[in-house]
Amino acid sequence: MTAQPPRRTGRKARQSQAPAPRADYRQLRNPFTPQKAVSDDECQAIHDTALRVLEELGIKVLLPEARTLFAKAGCRVVDDMVYVGRDVVAAAVTTAPKSIRLRAINPAHDQVYELGSLIFTPAGGCPNMFNRRDGRGPGSLAGYQDAAKLTQFYPAMHKMAPSPEPQDVPVHLRHYAMNLTQMTLGDKLAFVYARGQGQVEQTFEMLRLGYGLSDAEFENGSWASTVINTNSPRMLDRPMAQGIIDFARHGQMTIITPFCLAGAMAPITVAGALTLQHAECLAGITLAQITRAGAPVSYGGFASNVDMKSGAPAFGTPEHMKLQLGSGQLARLIGLPWRSAAGSASNAADAQGATENTCGLMGALMAGATMCVHSAGWLEGGLTYGYEKFVTDMEAVQTVAEMCLPTKADAAEIGFDALTEVQPGGHFFAAAHTMERFDRAFYPPLNADLSNHGSWKAAGGQTAEERATQVWQDALAAYTPLAHAGEVAERLAPYIEAKTKAGGAPPMD
Amino acid sequence: MTAQPPRRTGRKARQSQAPAPRADYRQLRNPFTPQKAVSDDECQAIHDTALRVLEELGIKVLLPEARTLFAKAGCRVVDDMVYVGRDVVAAAVTTAPKSIRLRAINPAHDQVYELGSLIFTPAGGCPNMFNRRDGRGPGSLAGYQDAAKLTQFYPAMHKMAPSPEPQDVPVHLRHYAMNLTQMTLGDKLAFVYARGQGQVEQTFEMLRLGYGLSDAEFENGSWASTVINTNSPRMLDRPMAQGIIDFARHGQMTIITPFCLAGAMAPITVAGALTLQHAECLAGITLAQITRAGAPVSYGGFASNVDMKSGAPAFGTPEHMKLQLGSGQLARLIGLPWRSAAGSASNAADAQGATENTCGLMGALMAGATMCVHSAGWLEGGLTYGYEKFVTDMEAVQTVAEMCLPTKADAAEIGFDALTEVQPGGHFFAAAHTMERFDRAFYPPLNADLSNHGSWKAAGGQTAEERATQVWQDALAAYTPLAHAGEVAERLAPYIEAKTKAGGAPPMD
Repeated sequence: MTAQPPRRTGRKARQSQAPAPRADYRQLRNPFTPQKAVSDDECQAIHDTALRVLEELGIKVLLPEARTLFAKAGCRVVDDMVYVGRDVVAAAVTTAPKSIRLRAINPAHDQVYELGSLIFTPAGGCPNMFNRRDGRGPGSLAGYQDAAKLTQFYPAMHKMAPSPEPQDVPVHLRHYAMNLTQMTLGDKLAFVYARGQGQVEQTFEMLRLGYGLSDAEFENGSWASTVINTNSPRMLDRPMAQGIIDFARHGQMTIITPFCLAGAMAPITVAGALTLQHAECLAGITLAQITRAGAPVSYGGFASNVDMKSGAPAFGTPEHMKLQLGSGQLARLIGLPWRSAAGSASNAADAQGATENTCGLMGALMAGATMCVHSAGWLEGGLTYGYEKFVTDMEAVQTVAEMCLPTKADAAEIGFDALTEVQPGGHFFAAAHTMERFDRAFYPPLNADLSNHGSWKAAGGQTAEERATQVWQDALAAYTPLAHAGEVAERLAPYIEAKTKAGGAPPMD
Repeated sequence: MTAQPPRRTGRKARQSQAPAPRADYRQLRNPFTPQKAVSDDECQAIHDTALRVLEELGIKVLLPEARTLFAKAGCRVVDDMVYVGRDVVAAAVTTAPKSIRLRAINPAHDQVYELGSLIFTPAGGCPNMFNRRDGRGPGSLAGYQDAAKLTQFYPAMHKMAPSPEPQDVPVHLRHYAMNLTQMTLGDKLAFVYARGQGQVEQTFEMLRLGYGLSDAEFENGSWASTVINTNSPRMLDRPMAQGIIDFARHGQMTIITPFCLAGAMAPITVAGALTLQHAECLAGITLAQITRAGAPVSYGGFASNVDMKSGAPAFGTPEHMKLQLGSGQLARLIGLPWRSAAGSASNAADAQGATENTCGLMGALMAGATMCVHSAGWLEGGLTYGYEKFVTDMEAVQTVAEMCLPTKADAAEIGFDALTEVQPGGHFFAAAHTMERFDRAFYPPLNADLSNHGSWKAAGGQTAEERATQVWQDALAAYTPLAHAGEVAERLAPYIEAKTKAGGAPPMD
């Protein structure tokens, strides 16, 4: 199938009524030195221990096909346990790409996925949704479509995401709805769930068909990516293993992400949780590489701690941040790009939620993460997508994005003439240096209210969360349909109709 | 006057009913690599331009005594303008101490003020106060006393602060009340306002008398410090200049802090605001050193931007953070310790307030600031001290403090045995490795609510700000009087009574 592709949409596709950000946030590079949680020797010891875990303790792999691949690569397989030798891991790390081209239908949203890049994705995996207008409830397709529009709307969000989960669409048909939404309401990187071969292959077909890509074009760079969550500790379930294999075979990116909550599914220490995460990451990376050497695969870490009294997961904690720093060290040790995550345990878009998510974002920045997932909108430890939370978090995301942009400091910026022009005790409001720059000098706040207390109170004394209700509604109102949407929807309609009639594709157990 | 000193209080002085933090936050070292906003060459160009500003444009100095000192040091003085040559600046930078011993009545709260330390101080300079129980109003002595108790209560706050301003005490007597409060309700570093020689010398006398220090003991390290705000651009007013001189003569620390709001009192660019800040800092440091070579003096930066539409100051913005990074570069260029600041423009302890302050704290961390001022409780750009804001900000301060503590990563922490003990798909809740550590493994949240949505809702669905009302009241209830308080108060009572009868000391114009 190589129909004429729809025009890849350019910059002009997004024409909102809302004020444009002053800068281009589409391709960010992290200019800061990655920071460390442990010494280089300790990092090496964690790596070595992870290799020992894989060799001596092994990993339980529930998918027979994956076990067969491991065995063929020389691993010892006993029942469903796979013991991965360090030579096999070393070979996999060698063939895993250091730089991955992530493709979007709008080439302006392509990303180079490598150490040094900084890519933000919004909240993922949330079954519920909340906003102050409609309240809290199960995710719906309408809610998912709105979330997709918000992701599309903000240039500092680089990738479409799978939240809130459209629970009003049956599971065997949901992948059609979710991918159609991403492909028509957005023109950024696509996210595809690895919920079994049936859904994955149909989704890939939707991408090829909708975007008019040949098989070769589809595999030239990664048009889809997925997150592979291992079942910590030391288990890879059937759909996740299948996902690694299917994505690798089609040249699409898997992001191996153990969800290592220290004290629960992982050891209670930072070093121990990192060790388990690293072992599981290496196993997943290995499976991708023994499936197809050179397949795009990412190291991933989403480790935090739990509250040891209740078992509740915590985010944005010092342990979360230290685990981010340690994850970055381990990823750099093996030379691979990696994903981190922000997020929040808070039940509201309040000071707790903002502190947690901002700490997670800053941790990702300091740790040199290639991608930061769940960077806006994650409430309740991921159980709920919050529209107001998306807005309040976007303020922090945009702050980080701005931090990454170069600071000009040439003679004109230093402005000796301006300093000469303004007398002691005067002000710079009317200086020529100011007038030349005033309209684009500073980051324009998205939701922050800088008015004084009297004005703020007179205007209703709204909190940031309350103000955000208008902001996301304004963004939805300003969202304009994308040029490619109609054609893509037309191409996909008969395919989806036929597949729906044929029974869809249930998720894999 | 060398009376017998009261026993310096030790660790046991603080006996609260509230859960203790799991770690010692009293002396923090910043383990991270300071980050840069501009290149080294650009930093040098900013430094050189600042020297040119001082030489060619000069600084307006309103205090004749200060002008006389500058003239004696070889500076050209024309009317109230002082032109400071780069040789005079260079000499001052050479004699300024690189490490300053800050003294507290409790030696456990002494600090070494140098590059690499990280010292937090709460909100300063707020004329008003707010909490959800009592509402918003002018600062009062009772409110100031409560704020002092909160500062004392939390180990990650290292210094007493001057907020909220006790406006119910007349200005000519206020310094007695503020310093008595700090000296009896706290045993941490003291802050003294530089509001003229009369108040400053009386306050120093209170410190010597109350703590039983001889003149020599008082000058062995710095028992008091003050913030010197230049009147940007390029002006040093009378009380600030007098403060530099008086503190230097008595060996007490001044923190030279231009308040450079880019676009208003400073050039609109990061590089320009840094240049002006740097010039004013160097002038202040020079005045301290030509008053008394070796006098403790700190470089300081509190630069952010304004909203160019309204002129309102903004905090926690990307520009604020870049200015923090640049300030750190300039301080390191001249080899001196320096202060930065967090803070918030928000009118509420909400997501905006938390994002702004957390960004400011992270900026200070990334910039390698020696001290971060206004790190908890600053609402409305400093116009109001917020008790709930203090609590929500303390969560972020403690997160940063924990981040600075070493992460153990030896073999026991890596825990290969724990990884062996727990089977694939199991959990670590009951592992021996966990049981040995569970009660002190993680940072215990101060105000974060980690309960699930149902439990949270059932318990009232409170926001972080709402919960914080109980937290600060609990902290006040748990605050226990300090062992030294009674004796210090007794020593000071007759002094204050006599000075009050004699008319107090009005602030300098």
